[in-house]
Amino acid sequence: MEWCQVRTNPERRHTLLDAAIEVLAREGARGLTFRAVDKEASVPAGTASNYFANRDDLMTQVGSRFYERLAPSAATMTQLTEGPKTRAHIRTLMRDIVERIEAFRTGYLALLELRLEATRRPELRAVLTERVRADMEFNVRNHLDAGLPGDEKSVQLLYLALNWLIVDRLTLPGVFTEEQSQELIDAAVDRLVGP
Amino acid sequence: MEWCQVRTNPERRHTLLDAAIEVLAREGARGLTFRAVDKEASVPAGTASNYFANRDDLMTQVGSRFYERLAPSAATMTQLTEGPKTRAHIRTLMRDIVERIEAFRTGYLALLELRLEATRRPELRAVLTERVRADMEFNVRNHLDAGLPGDEKSVQLLYLALNWLIVDRLTLPGVFTEEQSQELIDAAVDRLVGP
Repeated sequence: MEWCQVRTNPERRHTLLDAAIEVLAREGARGLTFRAVDKEASVPAGTASNYFANRDDLMTQVGSRFYERLAPSAATMTQLTEGPKTRAHIRTLMRDIVERIEAFRTGYLALLELRLEATRRPELRAVLTERVRADMEFNVRNHLDAGLPGDEKSVQLLYLALNWLIVDRLTLPGVFTEEQSQELIDAAVDRLVGP
Repeated sequence: MEWCQVRTNPERRHTLLDAAIEVLAREGARGLTFRAVDKEASVPAGTASNYFANRDDLMTQVGSRFYERLAPSAATMTQLTEGPKTRAHIRTLMRDIVERIEAFRTGYLALLELRLEATRRPELRAVLTERVRADMEFNVRNHLDAGLPGDEKSVQLLYLALNWLIVDRLTLPGVFTEEQSQELIDAAVDRLVGP
């Protein structure tokens, strides 16, 4: 049952999903084919089609993979739950999050491609919606449980403002300078979290 | 010199750009061909190629067309400059802007497609960057000249938060309910504009 082992090899599946992220970021959603993924991952032609039922399945799994790769480390979670309960600390946390997401540039661009595809694919839309809502609830709960200043709206509005800041920085990096971006993150925290 | 008249017919150019917006929103950037634009605009094959030097030229002109179609009307400008100088009035203005942009759904989705294309096309990136910066400066200047409460950072942070709210609403409309969206707009204004 060789194919069965191959089919369930999680490392190989991750390699294929990571390759799909690179293809999406570089070629756009229409460039995402099993053939392109196999080539990007340097695996034999036909491999991706063993792992994913169809392009829809591949795309929904790419969405999950993005969140998986950006899941906060144990160290990050400790910083969140055991750091000082101050606005200044939230500034640091937010700068770190933006930096971490920007460092995974192709992942974020791939996710934007998937969001546009989601306007055309109800199943993908349902999966991404669930994922974004879960992520938001996770962030709100962590923030409140950590006893940090601010409320649910603070977390939601930071999510909104910082996401578009990342869009600007990744797609049109000339809109804000590095210094302006840092100032905007600080101002967003100060104003949205409140006194 | 028939072709010369055709080439400079501004109404026809707008029709083609509006058709390009629909194609971009529906098919993505890769689906944007002169042929698809001609078809969408119901004009003879070959028309678009008389108006645009190449796909890059077409895409940069689509970017401008988006801002042209969303330019505030005289009535909107009067509301801005002559309305009450209160946070409550800014709430109304921001709800109106979000509604106006969302009503031009295909335009906004087309612009997101162009932003992703801009990561691959330096010329398009330069044109869009200029356009976004000009739009931002226009908004900041109008806000301050109107004597509304808040500062430059208020306007920039509202731009960030409301843009991603629109992304969520257009691509994953299940993330926030209509009521939550309105509450987020109000909270964004209250907190970002300040007392």
